[in-house]
Formats: sequence, C-alpha cells, structure tokens
Amino acid sequence: MPAFAVLAEVSDRPGILSGLTRVLADHQANITYVDIHDAGEPTSDIYFEFTLEGSDVSRILADMQQVPGVRLVEETPNFARIYGKRIIVMGGGAQVGFVAMGAITEADRHNIRGERISIDTIPLVGEQELAAAVRAAARLPRVRMLVLAGSLMGGAITEAVKEVQSYGLRVISLNQAGSVTDVADLVVSDPVQAGVMAVMAVAETAKFDLMRQLKRRY
Amino acid sequence: MPAFAVLAEVSDRPGILSGLTRVLADHQANITYVDIHDAGEPTSDIYFEFTLEGSDVSRILADMQQVPGVRLVEETPNFARIYGKRIIVMGGGAQVGFVAMGAITEADRHNIRGERISIDTIPLVGEQELAAAVRAAARLPRVRMLVLAGSLMGGAITEAVKEVQSYGLRVISLNQAGSVTDVADLVVSDPVQAGVMAVMAVAETAKFDLMRQLKRRY
Repeated sequence: MPAFAVLAEVSDRPGILSGLTRVLADHQANITYVDIHDAGEPTSDIYFEFTLEGSDVSRILADMQQVPGVRLVEETPNFARIYGKRIIVMGGGAQVGFVAMGAITEADRHNIRGERISIDTIPLVGEQELAAAVRAAARLPRVRMLVLAGSLMGGAITEAVKEVQSYGLRVISLNQAGSVTDVADLVVSDPVQAGVMAVMAVAETAKFDLMRQLKRRY
Repeated sequence: MPAFAVLAEVSDRPGILSGLTRVLADHQANITYVDIHDAGEPTSDIYFEFTLEGSDVSRILADMQQVPGVRLVEETPNFARIYGKRIIVMGGGAQVGFVAMGAITEADRHNIRGERISIDTIPLVGEQELAAAVRAAARLPRVRMLVLAGSLMGGAITEAVKEVQSYGLRVISLNQAGSVTDVADLVVSDPVQAGVMAVMAVAETAKFDLMRQLKRRY
C-alpha cells in the first residue's frame, strides 16, 4: 500500500489529535507512526505516517485542514527515509562507546551505498534500569537490533531480553559475566566487531545472515 | 500537571487510534507523545504519554478498555524516564564516531549521578540528505542538541540549521569548511570535546552554560 507522511501545525490543546485521527479513520488510512512535537507555545507539530488504499491523500489533507485548532497541514518526507533502521546500544559507557564506534563506521559504509541505518545509544547502569530500557527498546519505532555492551548483565535484564526476542527483536551481547550471554542471539568479545556485526546483520547491502550465526560466540 | 504513560495492545486496523484519542480528549488529557509499534500481526501496541489535571487515570484506563479492538490497557514507565534527553550527532562516519565516543563517555558520568541522556547518531553524506536530517531532528521527540560532525557543510544544511534554531534547538558544529560554522551556536575543533560539551550543555548535573559560550570557537 502507498505510504504517506503528513505534518500538521496545531494549537496545543486537548482533542486535536482525536480530530485528526478521526479524519484518517474516515478515509480508512492505517496509521503506522505518530509523533507530537512542541514547536513552542502555543503551537505543536503533529506528524503522521500512514498507508492508504484507493483514497486520495489530497482529500485527507483538505479534511484535516478543517479540524478546529489546525493551522497548517502539509505532506513531508518520512522518518523511515531519513533516519532508517535503528540499532540501539546500551550498557557501560566505555564499551557503549567502542560498540558505537564500530557500528557508526560500518553504517557509514553501507549508508554511502544507499542504506539508511542510524545508531542510537544509552549509557546506563543498574539491573532494573537496563531491564526497563531493554523492554522499552521493543516499543521504539524502527528498531532492528539491540546490542548489550556491559561486563555483567543477568537477572531481570535476561528476562527482558527473552521478552523482546519474543516480539522479534534480535539481541547481540558482548562476551560478559551474567546469564545474558546464554539467551543472546549472538555473543561477540570485541566491542568494535560487535558494532560492525550488528550493522551487517540489518543492512540489505551486506552479505551477513544473523540467522546462520545464531547462538555462536566470537 | 501529573504525567502518565499508558500502553494499549490493539487489533491492527484503522480507527482504533481515533477511538483511544477520543477517550483521552473526553477526559481533557493533553497528549504529549504517541508511539505505534507493530507487535506482530495481527496486533499492535499503542503507547501514550499525557498530562492530566483533576481526572482519575484509572477511569481513563477503563474507558480505553471499552474501545472496540482494544485487547489490553495498562500503565507503564514513560520513555522520558528511560531514554531521557537526546543528543543527535550526524555527518561523516569517522567524525560521528569520535563525537559519539566523547558524548557517550560524558553521558555515562552524568547518568550515574541521576541524569538520563542518550546519544543518537546517523552517519550520512550529501547536502540534501543532511539538510533533511537536520530538519527532521527538530521533529523527533526529546531532542535537546544537534552536533554536526563533518568536514564540509554549508548551503542547504546551513539553511536547515537556522530553521531548527528558530524552533529552539541548539547546534554545535565541528570546526570545518563551509558556512555552517557561521550559524552554529558553538564551534569545536576536537570531535571528542564536541561530544563532551554537547552533553555538558544539556546535563542538569553539569555546570556549563551554553548561552554564555554562544558563538565561541574552541
């Protein structure tokens, strides 16, 4: 189905999102992404991505423009084309930095050839904090891979990894203490190589099939 | 106003987002963030953050549960608490990697003291591609700082920087060829230091006032 992205500048008050989503529902548009951004009081930007079968996007724009509180509606390039697939690296700062270095350098090589891969990181300590961040990663848009960059991860983190794997998210772990290496899809000792492999696994431009490497250790 | 986060597991079909936002509007909730995530066919997860004055969140949960197509609704920890403020680094791979290294190491030091700062990157070349990514950064949630890590940036990129600055986003640039250094809020030669300064500028735990450094070069 054709995909569209639309940006609406609106007054910052309750009910406008409801009005705009009503228009999209009336046109049978299937909303795949929404983002609300404070453009500064008293206005906000609301950004939609949606797929549409048969209906005319210009009629949707015209109907959105009629919703009370809407100032401006326009088509815009979509995030998937700009920021692409995301790899999230989390754990201790030193190791997150080296995984990111490997992943960014490798993503650069693929992005030059037409891929669009971005590397997001969060340096974070604590079992409960990391478990919450792992769970939340599965709810973030466009995330294809999680890399756990630490020296000791287990317990609640391992349970969170199993949960996000059940949603289809793949997880690479550095070779480290704790039970997380027992459940990771791939275990890698060198942080730079872990970053490179994470990118290779999600790049269409790479010949690396993570499924053939499952449960291996490097 | 008290802030809440709610996760709804729903059937993947048009109209459900409209039904859920109608419930929030009816309760005068002000929606600050929405995320839609495919949890795998045929269900999706829809995540809301909203502020609420006076009304009872448990009544909102109960009303959301009654929307046709909704399977499960529950309160959940919010992204702002988990991933916090975002710094986005974009440009050529080698320099993005070193800026990220500095930023991640510095963020680690602040996150240990209670901050929550994440570093997101996109290695990207091309004037139009970078200009689009700069503009899109202003629409992404929780972004506090943009770091331009390249060797030559000007033209459409400079225009995009001026535009996002007008929305309140701050921009640090590496010392490089092109007109982008004329408009950046701060220009830094060493990529590691640029990353460190970006984190210091957004961290509540740091004593660094970017406004006092405006238009300086290091």
